[in-house]
Amino acid sequence: MLTNGQKYIHPFSFSQSEVIAFAKVTGDNNPVHLDDEFAAQTVFKKKIIHGMLGASVLSKVFGTIFPGNGTIYLNQTLNFYKPMYVDEYYEAIFEVKELIFEKQRAIITTTIVDIDNKIVLAGEACIMHAKILQQVHA
Amino acid sequence: MLTNGQKYIHPFSFSQSEVIAFAKVTGDNNPVHLDDEFAAQTVFKKKIIHGMLGASVLSKVFGTIFPGNGTIYLNQTLNFYKPMYVDEYYEAIFEVKELIFEKQRAIITTTIVDIDNKIVLAGEACIMHAKILQQVHA
Repeated sequence: MLTNGQKYIHPFSFSQSEVIAFAKVTGDNNPVHLDDEFAAQTVFKKKIIHGMLGASVLSKVFGTIFPGNGTIYLNQTLNFYKPMYVDEYYEAIFEVKELIFEKQRAIITTTIVDIDNKIVLAGEACIMHAKILQQVHA
Repeated sequence: MLTNGQKYIHPFSFSQSEVIAFAKVTGDNNPVHLDDEFAAQTVFKKKIIHGMLGASVLSKVFGTIFPGNGTIYLNQTLNFYKPMYVDEYYEAIFEVKELIFEKQRAIITTTIVDIDNKIVLAGEACIMHAKILQQVHA
């Protein structure tokens, strides 16, 4: 059961071997994620995590924790403000912005911050879940 | 070099073993992607692909093909209209909507359609790439 303004915080990090596995399964072999020499020539100076790998944390939390199994993903906006790096500490922060009971939908803001609390990714999701039902008090 | 209105079409499909690998690396073990019995009880009736796995095709194309290595992902909107299934044929369609030369940015519409040409995912991306530079004719 989600409530308006409810917050959920999910800490995470990714290793380089997870980045390599993500590149393999998605085919996203952009060398900025995989090749030290290439990455050194970019504005980032070192290898970065795929933005979509970072964003997959949002899907993971919706589908398995908050609100969990049975979640249907309707939309997600992703603004990539800063690159993400392997072996660094991040937090994905979820906050319920609006509940649309008649459609069993929730609009949830999704933010990823780094260890200095700087925003690396921000956006908003709309999900559908059977748990999103108005409590009727008799 | 991208041009206004330029289109790129990328056909793809995913196997169940790729879905399992994606679940493993992202931690997104939502049973709707992995468990036949659970999925049969949902509105989808059978297992579906992670929306973010489908969306990773967009990142893959931007980072490796169109416009390719060196792409910086600034934002992406994702509207999930229909579920995606394993071993089915899909096309990701990219169309350059706007070029912002002074910022080396491009706004590109991103659409995934199924074999019946029905839209399963639609959205828009903003990317940055050194190739996005106004041609100056002397």
